[in-house]
Amino acid sequence: MGDVCADTTLQFIPRFDASGLMTAICVDEGDGTILMVAHMNKEALALTRSTGFAHFWSRSRQSLWKKGETSGNMLRVSDMLVDCDQDCLVLHVTPAGPACHTGRRSCFYRRVTDHGLEMVGD
Amino acid sequence: MGDVCADTTLQFIPRFDASGLMTAICVDEGDGTILMVAHMNKEALALTRSTGFAHFWSRSRQSLWKKGETSGNMLRVSDMLVDCDQDCLVLHVTPAGPACHTGRRSCFYRRVTDHGLEMVGD
Repeated sequence: MGDVCADTTLQFIPRFDASGLMTAICVDEGDGTILMVAHMNKEALALTRSTGFAHFWSRSRQSLWKKGETSGNMLRVSDMLVDCDQDCLVLHVTPAGPACHTGRRSCFYRRVTDHGLEMVGD
Repeated sequence: MGDVCADTTLQFIPRFDASGLMTAICVDEGDGTILMVAHMNKEALALTRSTGFAHFWSRSRQSLWKKGETSGNMLRVSDMLVDCDQDCLVLHVTPAGPACHTGRRSCFYRRVTDHGLEMVGD
């Protein structure tokens, strides 16, 4: 593996950070809307790949987390892309419901302005 | 600030991680393609907001980095969204050229399959 260059290889060699995590961006398969961003450790990545449903590592709870396990709002993964240095994933997903814990479709519901935040229409 | 709830407030209270960083996803203003993902520290965020061009913190080089400073492929920021817990940003950008250091438009040019990676058409 030492000789493999992350950006040219066709080997999947996910690069986890010092905390053992990589970033995963979940995008709606339907229209490309970014729904949420979370983190995966090795186990969450393996479970996502084997089950076809997004799993993450919760940094706040320090536990493995199947998205939608309690809310029912699971994310079915139809495609997974990796970036050049293999430390970030884009997941194309079909959401069973709102992806955000606030009940909104997307976690990105506020715009940063010069005067604080403002709500974005969905 | 202690009383402010990150997901309901209209105050911008960016939450940097233990390394002083937050994730920034750059999306093409034109068609919504995810171009690249990088990290911002407090200074990179401030420079991005004040100049209108994306600045990041390079974890590998441990230095502030104006995207495109050497390549010319700057990212002009037209919109910035923040997520519910205010630790991740989506930047809508107009790229001056390829966003990826490999010369590709996007860093996400490979699909993860059961048998390694495969190239994605652009």
